[in-house]
Amino acid sequence: MATGNAPTLEDVAARAGVSRATASRVINADPRVREAARLAVHAAVAQLGYRPNRAARRLVTRAADSIAVVVPESDERVFSDPFFSGTLRGVTRAVGDLPMQVVLVMGKPDDGDHRMERYLRGGHTDGAIVVSHHQNDNLWRVLAETQLPSVFLGRPYAEEARVPYVDVDNAAGAALAARHLVERGCRRIGTVTGPLDMSAGQDRLDGWQRVLVEAGLSTDLVEIGDFAAAGGAQATRRLLERCPDLDGIFVASDQMAVAAIGELAVAGRRVPEDVAVVGYDDSTAATMSRPALTTVVNPIAEMASRAVDLLLRVMDGDEVEPAILPTALVVRESA
Amino acid sequence: MATGNAPTLEDVAARAGVSRATASRVINADPRVREAARLAVHAAVAQLGYRPNRAARRLVTRAADSIAVVVPESDERVFSDPFFSGTLRGVTRAVGDLPMQVVLVMGKPDDGDHRMERYLRGGHTDGAIVVSHHQNDNLWRVLAETQLPSVFLGRPYAEEARVPYVDVDNAAGAALAARHLVERGCRRIGTVTGPLDMSAGQDRLDGWQRVLVEAGLSTDLVEIGDFAAAGGAQATRRLLERCPDLDGIFVASDQMAVAAIGELAVAGRRVPEDVAVVGYDDSTAATMSRPALTTVVNPIAEMASRAVDLLLRVMDGDEVEPAILPTALVVRESA
Repeated sequence: MATGNAPTLEDVAARAGVSRATASRVINADPRVREAARLAVHAAVAQLGYRPNRAARRLVTRAADSIAVVVPESDERVFSDPFFSGTLRGVTRAVGDLPMQVVLVMGKPDDGDHRMERYLRGGHTDGAIVVSHHQNDNLWRVLAETQLPSVFLGRPYAEEARVPYVDVDNAAGAALAARHLVERGCRRIGTVTGPLDMSAGQDRLDGWQRVLVEAGLSTDLVEIGDFAAAGGAQATRRLLERCPDLDGIFVASDQMAVAAIGELAVAGRRVPEDVAVVGYDDSTAATMSRPALTTVVNPIAEMASRAVDLLLRVMDGDEVEPAILPTALVVRESA
Repeated sequence: MATGNAPTLEDVAARAGVSRATASRVINADPRVREAARLAVHAAVAQLGYRPNRAARRLVTRAADSIAVVVPESDERVFSDPFFSGTLRGVTRAVGDLPMQVVLVMGKPDDGDHRMERYLRGGHTDGAIVVSHHQNDNLWRVLAETQLPSVFLGRPYAEEARVPYVDVDNAAGAALAARHLVERGCRRIGTVTGPLDMSAGQDRLDGWQRVLVEAGLSTDLVEIGDFAAAGGAQATRRLLERCPDLDGIFVASDQMAVAAIGELAVAGRRVPEDVAVVGYDDSTAATMSRPALTTVVNPIAEMASRAVDLLLRVMDGDEVEPAILPTALVVRESA
């Protein structure tokens, strides 16, 4: 416990010799805690002079009520991309039995009338998890101004944004994909990127580029996609037009990668014999695809769970560090 | 600023050196404020740790800012059934440019801790549209008690619920389906129902039953489904076990009907030659199905739009009548 700072829930848990979750349950009068742990936590609270802050007190009184999952995308996009349903399921499961309603707030925030901004400024929720943030959506600035406890799922685009976030190491994941293509002998390797106004899009491009430079290969075969199927198909057509002897593609989402395989079939290319394809996400689509998709793991459920953990700590008044999760390549048939 | 009290809007205005009205406009994201004043107010908000009070803010702005779409179902169910994405899209389009954020509130309301009920009682939205209401979810009673303006999409199950609603004439739609089966010569006609704790499930069963009674046919072949694919497949297997010479089925949702066609194929029955199948919804699944599905129109987008219209009128204090939309049969290949 840092000198001069108010004791945190972590301090209480450490003193009591229990997990943070158990300490939190005791303080929130959750009955599912052993009596010995309950007594130890109450003793630690008294010894440290721990005082739950406003958010925590509200949990105690069961007057706290909701956290928002904020997605600055159209509802069509949110409902058509399994990334979002997976994230929401992860958040809902991580919230679990906590007495908080999860509300989903969607919509392009640049719709002119600032309705999402007004909603977030209005104090209608006790915290926010922001998913699919774009460079120009202004969300980190709005949230910093409102002081609404918030956590980003995916690193905020702006480097000056001092916002807690959970992310996967996207550049490392993309590097795994590119290295796999290089090692299986591909020499004309393209990439279909995500949106480059999102850190995930930019980082995956960077990781691919780094490996190709190291291997002495050209990095000119870049086409920009949008993580969704239609954009992935178009970008793949452009790559094939520019480079008919293309022999490998790293596609920055599984939805786009499945569409890319479709386009390659239309163009008479065999996957992986003529063109090897690596996706990103390890979603259900990757296993359903024929050939099954070699892809990079995007641990959505774990990221969502970590985001909820961080948010609860921010609501408790803790200082938190960003959490960067590792990733891995899953080799199936497409590369 | 009084010691120990939460900072007020007046405190913010004083610190920023602007009028209370200007501070209020900035906090409500009203664009008609000079940039310098906007920055000063945001700085004061941050310095003082000010959080707007909702009720006061509404008095200041006299403007609604959010409506909730309330779905008492799990998020898995909401994201897997196109009925919900269609409804949400319809609501979002109907809200259009109105300065209101749509928030989606999901979850089984019988989860023990009443978090949805507490959220709705908390006054966090200016109105609610309730979709997929079940007999025991208590929502109409909660909403009546809170006096939160609300409209049901689908008739409330309880007859004593005096809640405005929008519905389609489900019994008439089911009767169209059943009559089509009778007229094409089917004589052993079963039905796979929706959940019978929902008015749509009950009404569609009633419409089917009425036509079979009029035609002098047996109404014993009833199996209860849940509107989702897996439940539809199971119910179809039970119908086939009970009545191997089944020659027609009215299935109360397209998702279940597509699953029923799959089960019939597994059992070696041709559709429509051996067993004619009529679905309900006229969703995308109906056109993608092989054979393409004969089905009943469920005008989701129009219902959502009418629900928003009614809700806006309720929010204006008008008395409104329920709206019942007509329906139609779309004949394709499956019957």
